Amino acid sequence: MASNNLLVHLKHCFSPPSLRSYLAEFISTFLFVFTAVGSAISARMLTTPDVTNSASPLVATAVAQAFGLFAAVLIAADVSGGHVNPAVTFAYAIGGHIGVPSAIFYWASQLLGATMACLSLNLFSAGEEVPTTRIAVAMTGFGGAVMEGVLTFLLVYTVHVVGEPRLSGGGGKRGKRGFAATALGALAVGLTEGACVLAAGSLSGASMNPARSFGAAVVSGHFKNQAVYWAGPMIGAAVAALVYQIMACPSVAESRHGNVEAVVV
Amino acid sequence: MASNNLLVHLKHCFSPPSLRSYLAEFISTFLFVFTAVGSAISARMLTTPDVTNSASPLVATAVAQAFGLFAAVLIAADVSGGHVNPAVTFAYAIGGHIGVPSAIFYWASQLLGATMACLSLNLFSAGEEVPTTRIAVAMTGFGGAVMEGVLTFLLVYTVHVVGEPRLSGGGGKRGKRGFAATALGALAVGLTEGACVLAAGSLSGASMNPARSFGAAVVSGHFKNQAVYWAGPMIGAAVAALVYQIMACPSVAESRHGNVEAVVV
Amino acid sequence: MASNNLLVHLKHCFSPPSLRSYLAEFISTFLFVFTAVGSAISARMLTTPDVTNSASPLVATAVAQAFGLFAAVLIAADVSGGHVNPAVTFAYAIGGHIGVPSAIFYWASQLLGATMACLSLNLFSAGEEVPTTRIAVAMTGFGGAVMEGVLTFLLVYTVHVVGEPRLSGGGGKRGKRGFAATALGALAVGLTEGACVLAAGSLSGASMNPARSFGAAVVSGHFKNQAVYWAGPMIGAAVAALVYQIMACPSVAESRHGNVEAVVV
Amino acid sequence: MASNNLLVHLKHCFSPPSLRSYLAEFISTFLFVFTAVGSAISARMLTTPDVTNSASPLVATAVAQAFGLFAAVLIAADVSGGHVNPAVTFAYAIGGHIGVPSAIFYWASQLLGATMACLSLNLFSAGEEVPTTRIAVAMTGFGGAVMEGVLTFLLVYTVHVVGEPRLSGGGGKRGKRGFAATALGALAVGLTEGACVLAAGSLSGASMNPARSFGAAVVSGHFKNQAVYWAGPMIGAAVAALVYQIMACPSVAESRHGNVEAVVV
Repeated sequence: MASNNLLVHLKHCFSPPSLRSYLAEFISTFLFVFTAVGSAISARMLTTPDVTNSASPLVATAVAQAFGLFAAVLIAADVSGGHVNPAVTFAYAIGGHIGVPSAIFYWASQLLGATMACLSLNLFSAGEEVPTTRIAVAMTGFGGAVMEGVLTFLLVYTVHVVGEPRLSGGGGKRGKRGFAATALGALAVGLTEGACVLAAGSLSGASMNPARSFGAAVVSGHFKNQAVYWAGPMIGAAVAALVYQIMACPSVAESRHGNVEAVVV
Repeated sequence: MASNNLLVHLKHCFSPPSLRSYLAEFISTFLFVFTAVGSAISARMLTTPDVTNSASPLVATAVAQAFGLFAAVLIAADVSGGHVNPAVTFAYAIGGHIGVPSAIFYWASQLLGATMACLSLNLFSAGEEVPTTRIAVAMTGFGGAVMEGVLTFLLVYTVHVVGEPRLSGGGGKRGKRGFAATALGALAVGLTEGACVLAAGSLSGASMNPARSFGAAVVSGHFKNQAVYWAGPMIGAAVAALVYQIMACPSVAESRHGNVEAVVV
Repeated sequence: MASNNLLVHLKHCFSPPSLRSYLAEFISTFLFVFTAVGSAISARMLTTPDVTNSASPLVATAVAQAFGLFAAVLIAADVSGGHVNPAVTFAYAIGGHIGVPSAIFYWASQLLGATMACLSLNLFSAGEEVPTTRIAVAMTGFGGAVMEGVLTFLLVYTVHVVGEPRLSGGGGKRGKRGFAATALGALAVGLTEGACVLAAGSLSGASMNPARSFGAAVVSGHFKNQAVYWAGPMIGAAVAALVYQIMACPSVAESRHGNVEAVVV
Repeated sequence: MASNNLLVHLKHCFSPPSLRSYLAEFISTFLFVFTAVGSAISARMLTTPDVTNSASPLVATAVAQAFGLFAAVLIAADVSGGHVNPAVTFAYAIGGHIGVPSAIFYWASQLLGATMACLSLNLFSAGEEVPTTRIAVAMTGFGGAVMEGVLTFLLVYTVHVVGEPRLSGGGGKRGKRGFAATALGALAVGLTEGACVLAAGSLSGASMNPARSFGAAVVSGHFKNQAVYWAGPMIGAAVAALVYQIMACPSVAESRHGNVEAVVV
């Protein structure tokens, strides 16, 4: 029976809609990592690191990641759900929104997309070294992992709120929300990413995405602190999924100004 | 009778929906202050203050606060109303939209969220000093308070217009507006915050939020001008609530191009 | 008969809805000019003009104006139509959407709002000189006026497209579009402003708004090139109103991919 | 029969709706190229190229292009479809959404709009040299073309997803989506442009638009690498149209969290 279920699962994993999902995750993660890593390269080519006295490279990569993640989530939203991040897929797997076999294929697609993005930047940019996410010199690996966990919690909690109509009063299933709600949800995810990169870019690197860190590490060959960028985001995403369950589980019928209005006497 | 009402109030303040509201305010204020203060730290680590000859740190923190407040307001909107700011809660209390006991719990959640955000930045960023909001050397405390009051008036007036469907022609109760209107309202609040930070960041610090100034003061130990960042925003928010009453009180049936069209002869 | 009409007009100009319109224009123009001029001051305090080697002050003021105009247009949209600019009011008067007496009161409100914004920045910022819009040294006044005219054409044409449902397929009267369409229209106006400031900020100053230039001139006492910032925007806005009439006048029933689909054989 | 069809086509190409489409493409491409090239000029006037040690000029032009393309696509959307880019028109021609004769007139309008934008910047900006899109010194022309192809793939794939309701669950014809969906689609296109400029601005120039590169080349007289900015974007756009066909062709009935939910047992 169990093996039968597994067979059904695996068959489903190779159905045309599933294959399109993997392709969508591949394209979107490619887009996001291409803009995240490319913006770091383009900004570095205009400045002399360790000499520049400007926060403009941080602004450049944060804005690129905000705009790029918005687009990446949006263009995959109706095909794959627009995860674009192994930590998001992990959170959805914990919440039971995606089966484990599918999640594994999502992960593979995301890691491949991220690696291909870094590889093409490396190949076609005259061998510019691909920058990895780095934690500040004075920080410990543990501190970096905690910070990545906090950042990813904020990102993945936002993903849950804007992706789920239960809290947002939309009612019914997600597919019925229409393009405007999907686009604004993707915008919220993208701009949260941008805010978090500005907040912690100089501290823990603000990866929040194991695929982004993995792709850069594979192509550059520098795997230092790779564990930080897997453990932190995964734990942060899992906590976000659990906290969201607490916030969303009962029917939410309060008015929006706060829930006390009804008893103001 | 009065004490009975108080009991009902207090009971309501510890009901599960209320507790979720406080948690939502805590998470959102944490998110906003984390991005506001974190972006100031991350930008400072890339520059040498007093030597840098660039406005990029101002751009970095303004964009972080714009994007971060958008996300913070949005993810709490349907649970707590998305105040994320003691001055906003104060304005809603004046307008009768939230009871005083609940407002006090909102304040406590916001102050705790802001303090925790500054504390975690301090702990996990290798002891980087947490920057407080400061007024320019040439400015007086009174000038700073007036400027914070003006800025907070603009922010809280925007909060009222986008949060209330009466002026925006949506009709009916707020909860019926759906996700798109909520998200666009939160976007307007966030981008107003960003514009105000760019306008007055070098003058009065552009806090507009007592919790943001309080959290940074507690963790850094510098309480100088703390009164400026409470008095200014609170008075500005109160004036915004009153002016909004004047603008919104009658039924608004004018066409949008201005109200003169009907008599163009 | 004519004098009777004038009386009706004037009576209407002092009706409560009209007075609220003027107050809305005053607040919104105050907000926009406060962010536009304030961001120039805040950026200047972080840099040494003529020495700084960074485009960050341009980015700072462009983003402030983009975000600030979005908020300014949105919060006045349902009360006054959200003109926030004498050139926009002029264009709407040409198109017959607002009567001339009302337009004059709109102008007065806008000029007063802009002047008060510059005055309060000057008073409470320890006497920081208020920066005026300036044309580049190598440019002539005529060139500056033409450029301001082109920029204002682009801005006011956008104002017409997003403000008028005829072209956008919404059908019916503007007041029925709801909050989401109003907010997205205001966003388009704000971001167009930001793009134009980035495009021509170093050339003609990119004012596109006589009130913004007038307020700064009154408070600083420098009226040089004031004519440039009135003639250019007014002519540009008038041309935009006329071109929009050409584009929008017939019923627009073409499909959006271009209008040829139907005859693809 | 064929010549008869051609006559019908040509007659249609000069119908009033078609002429308005060309005017809309002209205005929108003018707006986009004016902000793209103008922002490069305005940023250059504030910095000393080859000496400046800041990424702020890259941020300035990326934000200008993001905001400007958003506005350009939006104001033409209901008249011409808002292509604003010969590569987009090429992709729509491949997909059969626009006839070849019309596409040629679209191209002419776009090239004329881009050239006029560069010419007016040159004329009225005291002869500032118009900057062309350039590939990094260390890069080959082939590498530049591939990178432009990849960037244009990402941009045009986004254009297809947000412009087509089939994938986005809106149902029915595009014209029924209303203003909010059109505006959010245009925002996604604009912000994708901004992300790509930040990612590859220092590498291949991040033109993604043959009209933008053509206009600058005509006015400046520097046609070097012009082929790169035609071949790369055209091939990238064509691949995007084909990949989109694969993703969108079957009815898309999966839920958005991923398509596995149904079989979670």
